[in-house]
Amino acid sequence: MASKEESGKLEWRISVDNGTTEILVPKSGPSKRIFLWLKGLVMNVIVERIAKFMRNAWRIGADDPAKVVHCLKVGLALSLVSIFYYMRPLYDGVGGNAMWAIMTVVVVFESNVGATFSKCVNRVVATILAGSLGIAVHWVATQSGKAEIFVIGCSVFLFAFAATYSRFVPSFKARFDYGAMIFILTFSLVSVGGYRVDKLVDMAQQRVSTIAIGTSICIFITVFFCPIWAGTQLHRLVQRNFVKLADSLDGCVAEYLKKKDVEKNGIEDEETNMKLQGFKCVLNSKGTEESMANLARWEPAHGSFNFRHPWQQYVKIGAAMRRCAYCLENLSICMNYEAEAPDQVKNHFGEACLKLSSASSKILRELADMMNNTRKSSKMDFLVFDMNSAVQELQETLKTVPVRTNNAKEDGTMTMSLHEVLPVATLVSLLIENAARIQTTVEAVDELANLADFKQDSKKKTGDTNVKQPPLSS
Amino acid sequence: MASKEESGKLEWRISVDNGTTEILVPKSGPSKRIFLWLKGLVMNVIVERIAKFMRNAWRIGADDPAKVVHCLKVGLALSLVSIFYYMRPLYDGVGGNAMWAIMTVVVVFESNVGATFSKCVNRVVATILAGSLGIAVHWVATQSGKAEIFVIGCSVFLFAFAATYSRFVPSFKARFDYGAMIFILTFSLVSVGGYRVDKLVDMAQQRVSTIAIGTSICIFITVFFCPIWAGTQLHRLVQRNFVKLADSLDGCVAEYLKKKDVEKNGIEDEETNMKLQGFKCVLNSKGTEESMANLARWEPAHGSFNFRHPWQQYVKIGAAMRRCAYCLENLSICMNYEAEAPDQVKNHFGEACLKLSSASSKILRELADMMNNTRKSSKMDFLVFDMNSAVQELQETLKTVPVRTNNAKEDGTMTMSLHEVLPVATLVSLLIENAARIQTTVEAVDELANLADFKQDSKKKTGDTNVKQPPLSS
Repeated sequence: MASKEESGKLEWRISVDNGTTEILVPKSGPSKRIFLWLKGLVMNVIVERIAKFMRNAWRIGADDPAKVVHCLKVGLALSLVSIFYYMRPLYDGVGGNAMWAIMTVVVVFESNVGATFSKCVNRVVATILAGSLGIAVHWVATQSGKAEIFVIGCSVFLFAFAATYSRFVPSFKARFDYGAMIFILTFSLVSVGGYRVDKLVDMAQQRVSTIAIGTSICIFITVFFCPIWAGTQLHRLVQRNFVKLADSLDGCVAEYLKKKDVEKNGIEDEETNMKLQGFKCVLNSKGTEESMANLARWEPAHGSFNFRHPWQQYVKIGAAMRRCAYCLENLSICMNYEAEAPDQVKNHFGEACLKLSSASSKILRELADMMNNTRKSSKMDFLVFDMNSAVQELQETLKTVPVRTNNAKEDGTMTMSLHEVLPVATLVSLLIENAARIQTTVEAVDELANLADFKQDSKKKTGDTNVKQPPLSS
Repeated sequence: MASKEESGKLEWRISVDNGTTEILVPKSGPSKRIFLWLKGLVMNVIVERIAKFMRNAWRIGADDPAKVVHCLKVGLALSLVSIFYYMRPLYDGVGGNAMWAIMTVVVVFESNVGATFSKCVNRVVATILAGSLGIAVHWVATQSGKAEIFVIGCSVFLFAFAATYSRFVPSFKARFDYGAMIFILTFSLVSVGGYRVDKLVDMAQQRVSTIAIGTSICIFITVFFCPIWAGTQLHRLVQRNFVKLADSLDGCVAEYLKKKDVEKNGIEDEETNMKLQGFKCVLNSKGTEESMANLARWEPAHGSFNFRHPWQQYVKIGAAMRRCAYCLENLSICMNYEAEAPDQVKNHFGEACLKLSSASSKILRELADMMNNTRKSSKMDFLVFDMNSAVQELQETLKTVPVRTNNAKEDGTMTMSLHEVLPVATLVSLLIENAARIQTTVEAVDELANLADFKQDSKKKTGDTNVKQPPLSS
């Protein structure tokens, strides 16, 4: 009891204390303080987060206006399709099923033409297939009298199992994943729904027609309002990656060889770093390339691409480029080792390395040009020849290098220990390997040029027709 | 005219010829031949393709029975939800809206718990949000008299634009992509649909309750029937990748050093090749790791993983492993160069290289063990120390290598030219770099062990508590 009383007193005293302090500060004090604290909280936590999100969102739109255009197109498509609800004659035609048109637009509309086409075709074909099958199963079920529920239940279970399983087969999944889902959905709705709905065929017909309306609106808007083609995006991606590889290669080698002499400059450094890191985009673009190639084959002819453009070849080119990027990733080893490599070693190999790396990057830039103009290259053979002679030269340099043995330490001539040469030797062998990998990339692009019937380079026709053939590379 | 007649004659003669040959062969000939040809076509093209697809599908199921289980679960969930249609009291409760329960199950049910949870939460929250907003907009629209259609149209356009745009923001997309789509769908259906439907609130309520039914069935089945956890899959993937890296590393170095002595064996060769290519799985698992880590954080506590298990750390570990895999990819350079490296060079470096590679792969296997037992390792410090001394030793070997200079060619001692040493030098520097990268991987796994409170290794407690501390690696 005593303790209770005491605590009571204590509380009372505290409240008095609070009262006293309240009187001492201006009336608005605590409420103002709470208001300020709340304001601070809101400003710091919520507003700050929203502001960050908005800044982020703004930058995404500014970097790629096509995304904003896509959003506008979605809004437009939805507004168009909702006209079916507003206009009485149209609404009377399809009734409450107009809902399916809206749903189709929301689900099917994708940011590029290929994805939209693929989803539209999948949706329409799967709906028709599953709808007919569902009606057939429903008919069988009604004929079987008391076993109706059993027949429907079993067929739903079996078809759902089969369709879900097919989604695990990679070749099927790549093209018909969405179709399999729609198949399960429609089949269940029709066969199970048929148990309660009387005019099943009418319902199915109406649903197919509303889906047709939805898909046609999607296709119309996606193709005729600022179309974004998956194929064009893939083509540009590969082209940009060639430039990035070339920049990285030039940057890495130059950086390695000149690092000690040149003073670092903050702004320049950041730009150089961006260029040096370019190969990382190539390392990470496997998934994008594969999905784009899958979508691009749904697209009709557009720009300089025919309907049967060899999109799968881009995946092969991408794989070849990635192998070059692995080499570049490992060139960074040499950059890390840098402290160990004395200038005299660098000087000895510098010229030959720079020659090879610039010959290699010239080829990469020429490949980017080929992609950009969709033309065959007239000078590619010579560039490859140049690169191969640079490789030869570098190997010669290796053979003539004066390396200090343990016994010859007191010799007066300029010599290097193997330990000192190691980082440069790694650079050299990576550059040589990279040259070989670039050559396979050139072959992959040449194959694309043949498959896709790239035009001959006009320079070849007008200019030097009887130039001497480069000797075969050893 | 003459040419036409001629062509006519020609045709006629050909048809006569055909007639003659027909008479010469037995009566049943042509029809039988056509039948055989058709049969061949069907057998070869269609049956063959289907058989290939089925074989492929069978292998997928045999390799990973969890996929078959998932398909069975989908069938089960659909059968369960369709009970709502068959049973009158339940059907009377939700009416035609029972359709939404089926749709929810088909769309939301995914192969692992995390994905199903994520979709369920997205669907429910987005439906409730968009539904309330849609009803609010509908109310505003009805108050605005003649401008009703205008208000609805504008709001649909604006919200569709905003929600579609938010799907481009990566941080948002990773978690709420599906929710954004459902938001657009529900908002459009409610606000546009409200134009024709009278009892809008009733409809919305029914729809939410059917979606709740669908999601609870999904969650119930996905959690209680052979659950497949995204987190567990991610954990095992990382663990398996460690083993694969170790196998590749051992395999590459051993293959390089012993290739000339040992006769090739067909079966052994294939197995070795499989092991050598193991690092490619690591190169390609970036996407899987990231999406699994995203899904795993939706999952409740299971097995040895708490609710707030640091799944993002697995992405970091994966990135560190991939850097090791880049090194291994480039070790294949040395394999290609093999023809140039004489045995004496290999012998000189062989022992030190093998020592380093086996020390490195021991660490990788220990990391796999750590993951497998979710325990901290008591011997990791010593393994890292071993690896660092192997690096030191290899560098010493480099310093003492007798390299032939151009002037010392006629010297009697065993010497090597730099050109000959180059491939081995590359191997050496890649192995050294790989060791450094393995060390960063160890640090990443240690961080995971700390964040996730892995248990202490029991060996440490029972056994050598006063072992000498390994000196800090230089």
